[in-house]
Amino acid sequence: MEREIQTLRSVEEMQSYAGERPLGFVPTMGCLHEGHLSLARRAREECATVVVSIFVNPLQFGPKEDFGRYPRDPKRDMALAKEAGADALFMPEVADLYPKDFETEVRVRGLEDVLEGAARPGHFAGVATVLAKLLNIVGPDRMYMGQKDAQQAFLVDRMIRDLNFPTYLVVCPTVREPDGLAMSSRNAYLNEEERVAAAAIPRVLFTARDASSTKPEILEETVREALISERLIALEYVCANDAATLGPVTSETRKILLSLAALVGKTRLIDNLVIER
Amino acid sequence: MEREIQTLRSVEEMQSYAGERPLGFVPTMGCLHEGHLSLARRAREECATVVVSIFVNPLQFGPKEDFGRYPRDPKRDMALAKEAGADALFMPEVADLYPKDFETEVRVRGLEDVLEGAARPGHFAGVATVLAKLLNIVGPDRMYMGQKDAQQAFLVDRMIRDLNFPTYLVVCPTVREPDGLAMSSRNAYLNEEERVAAAAIPRVLFTARDASSTKPEILEETVREALISERLIALEYVCANDAATLGPVTSETRKILLSLAALVGKTRLIDNLVIER
Repeated sequence: MEREIQTLRSVEEMQSYAGERPLGFVPTMGCLHEGHLSLARRAREECATVVVSIFVNPLQFGPKEDFGRYPRDPKRDMALAKEAGADALFMPEVADLYPKDFETEVRVRGLEDVLEGAARPGHFAGVATVLAKLLNIVGPDRMYMGQKDAQQAFLVDRMIRDLNFPTYLVVCPTVREPDGLAMSSRNAYLNEEERVAAAAIPRVLFTARDASSTKPEILEETVREALISERLIALEYVCANDAATLGPVTSETRKILLSLAALVGKTRLIDNLVIER
Repeated sequence: MEREIQTLRSVEEMQSYAGERPLGFVPTMGCLHEGHLSLARRAREECATVVVSIFVNPLQFGPKEDFGRYPRDPKRDMALAKEAGADALFMPEVADLYPKDFETEVRVRGLEDVLEGAARPGHFAGVATVLAKLLNIVGPDRMYMGQKDAQQAFLVDRMIRDLNFPTYLVVCPTVREPDGLAMSSRNAYLNEEERVAAAAIPRVLFTARDASSTKPEILEETVREALISERLIALEYVCANDAATLGPVTSETRKILLSLAALVGKTRLIDNLVIER
């Protein structure tokens, strides 16, 4: 089936786009991979209109992070989004979303200081702020995000509820390569040797999940020990949290979020699994 | 003309209220006076549906401020709002807007650190956060606020534009008592003697405006000197800012916001005038 895909390059164009309801929205930073496309396909199944946004958001990158060299490939993205069933692609300019006198910041306190938030100061304020904007500009009934960025999905869900956005967040499973590596635009940074080594990341997570204990210290230690022997991988953190609060695991915890960040060569990757107790 | 007025006491009820468009919204903390009613009447003239909210927002009060004793009179408010032409009154509970796990904060940096923001730390984060929520819950086409709270209106306008809320802010003139005192729910705190003395506040602002100079230092000094002799009034600050930026007055400044805060007895009042250069 051939669909036309509309490209909307300004906030104004997007705001005057009148898609049929329900409208599903997939926010991305582009360089689309199977993970993003699975979100778009899910939106296509559930919604009358599907909008995909492509915006590499400077606010969520630290000063020493990879904003400048983050991979961009709009032509390929357009073809892939169309194939996955998108009706419109929203590709705004930085100056359109952040004019010179831009001053507003949205934060989700508490949640922004753990895990990825602790490792990347300011990152989640940047995520919350751009998503508050995109929700207002696109006005979706449903928004689709991936479980790969578990804390991001958790925080955005909290922001949506706290600020009463009339949007339902759908969190979709992580899509993995055949060897288990979670799909990520940053995988493109890996050289051949690093790419092979990176498969250890999901492997150790699955090993920890399939071990006999769900004690947080044992889960974390299993990952730590298994990665020590990986010459190309430097573990930044591994943490077992209560998946329902992102706080510490307690006797009430029913699902554990086991998440980690690691450098593979110079490339920083994250991954996680949810483990039932 | 007799209109029915609907009272909506929960976020859910408000969200499922389907008013005809355009929908005009007047957010208030209740204890309605002519200032609020002028906003509602303006909304009535311009919109098909008028919603007035009454919510004394704990987030915008400091720990030593008057949240507990802030005047409340819902029955009278209902009658007044109906008379002014409101179709619906939104009166949510604190626990409905701020459930226990509430964590999100909206801030407008820069603007929150001057004038009232400097005097009342955290105040404008509370204002921005509750208004982001109310905008999402009520979903108005137009929102009406008073020039009496000039910095609040300025900051909310910036937040609306920064976060791309699909709402137009209408700022309406300050409504004054016959002796010039700006209408405020806090005027109810004044005893008879203080009430008489309070008229000096608008009087000195008008005196400064009608003097020959628009130099910021002279405007400020005129107010300062004129209030020294007022036994019951303690000036907290008076400040002449560029009305378009809330920054310092420069050679580019075309309109000056001359604003002040003062204690009249124990009651803190604010007022301002815009002065053309």
